[in-house]
Amino acid sequence: MVLVSPRNPLNIGAAARAMANFGFSRLSVVAPFEPNWREARSAIGAPDLLVNAVESATLAEAVSGCTLVVGTGTVTRRKPEQPIFPLPCLAPRVGRELAGGGRVAVVFGSEKHGLTREDLSYCHLLVEIPTDPQQPSMNLGQAVAVCLYELIRSSVATPKIPPATSATLATSSATSGRLDLLAGVIEETMQAAGYSPRVMQAANRHDLRLLLRRLMLTSHDTRRILGLFRRILWRLNRPVR
Amino acid sequence: MVLVSPRNPLNIGAAARAMANFGFSRLSVVAPFEPNWREARSAIGAPDLLVNAVESATLAEAVSGCTLVVGTGTVTRRKPEQPIFPLPCLAPRVGRELAGGGRVAVVFGSEKHGLTREDLSYCHLLVEIPTDPQQPSMNLGQAVAVCLYELIRSSVATPKIPPATSATLATSSATSGRLDLLAGVIEETMQAAGYSPRVMQAANRHDLRLLLRRLMLTSHDTRRILGLFRRILWRLNRPVR
Repeated sequence: MVLVSPRNPLNIGAAARAMANFGFSRLSVVAPFEPNWREARSAIGAPDLLVNAVESATLAEAVSGCTLVVGTGTVTRRKPEQPIFPLPCLAPRVGRELAGGGRVAVVFGSEKHGLTREDLSYCHLLVEIPTDPQQPSMNLGQAVAVCLYELIRSSVATPKIPPATSATLATSSATSGRLDLLAGVIEETMQAAGYSPRVMQAANRHDLRLLLRRLMLTSHDTRRILGLFRRILWRLNRPVR
Repeated sequence: MVLVSPRNPLNIGAAARAMANFGFSRLSVVAPFEPNWREARSAIGAPDLLVNAVESATLAEAVSGCTLVVGTGTVTRRKPEQPIFPLPCLAPRVGRELAGGGRVAVVFGSEKHGLTREDLSYCHLLVEIPTDPQQPSMNLGQAVAVCLYELIRSSVATPKIPPATSATLATSSATSGRLDLLAGVIEETMQAAGYSPRVMQAANRHDLRLLLRRLMLTSHDTRRILGLFRRILWRLNRPVR
């Protein structure tokens, strides 16, 4: 689980407690407000997972090893470009990813602003908690509890997912970090080929990041595409006579 | 929903907020600790349902009009005499009761002791939140959120089709013919960049065709990728000096 820029130490504590309640143990925190983060971490009775939480400067870094990144929050304000899963439909998708040997991150934004447009561009899909339109915004600790409950719910309500097979390696999903690497090389290639004007570069970078996630590339695909673009780039930069 | 002897004003507020989030409106409070109860009720931004909550001296009085009373909490300490429902199995039972014209109460005990043996004697059944045995006890506000989420969950559990964006064109799938056109241009680019030896070309063509279909590209994606590869190809064939 990843908390982006959490502010309130009570909320951080509540999120950690919900994780412990539902048997989750890996917490990452991105760019926390330091005094509050220290306070939450040193609180009496703070669970081990909070003390052992990993701190990152950026969301890209926090999720670089993950194959499926799930964003949370109300999406009424923006028009997201990813598929939106109602929370009750999330567990099968996450289960499939884990069964295939993938790693999943569920990302929560700050209490005040939720996830930014930039944060969302690292997400493969968004999950929506089915709250009342009159009062859609949930408290952070409660939103975490509800999402994690949903993820473990199916394991108590339905048969367990079969273990990963030997075919896993060939079809394993690409990690977020590999996709970022690929995006970087494609962007360099675009520039070397004079594909897009400079003013479009930020928008193209954003679109490319979303596109690469939507395609659900395997790590094998990513390796091949990376190889192709590196070769193209090399050729563009050293034209043969 | 019924809170029995709640102590912490923050928890009372959080419970009320979860009710508002999930569209519940009738709150009863039994024998609250008066100063804290007043504080919670007069807090800035307290939802209407908290201001309008009904206060009772006893649980018996609070649930007197209900046809199904559901008790919550960990039951490890006691040997309950009622049936215990895992939380994921609660909604159908509650739904049946409501469909038959009944009234249902879900009862939460105080943060410190949960429901007493006396309280439990007013419950038709008990519900158990499937928490980790290592950390079974949930925060009151979070327990309320999870239980109420479960009750509304089934009404939204059908998968939603990803939101239709304004332009259907942008999200329509690429035709097979367009994918073949794209594959042709990518293959030409591979050759121009010297990416793969000639003996691999048939195999690569086959893999590429499969890959482009697996990615479920939209016609918009296809157009953009085609544009990029055409630009690259043009540059590779006419290197700038």
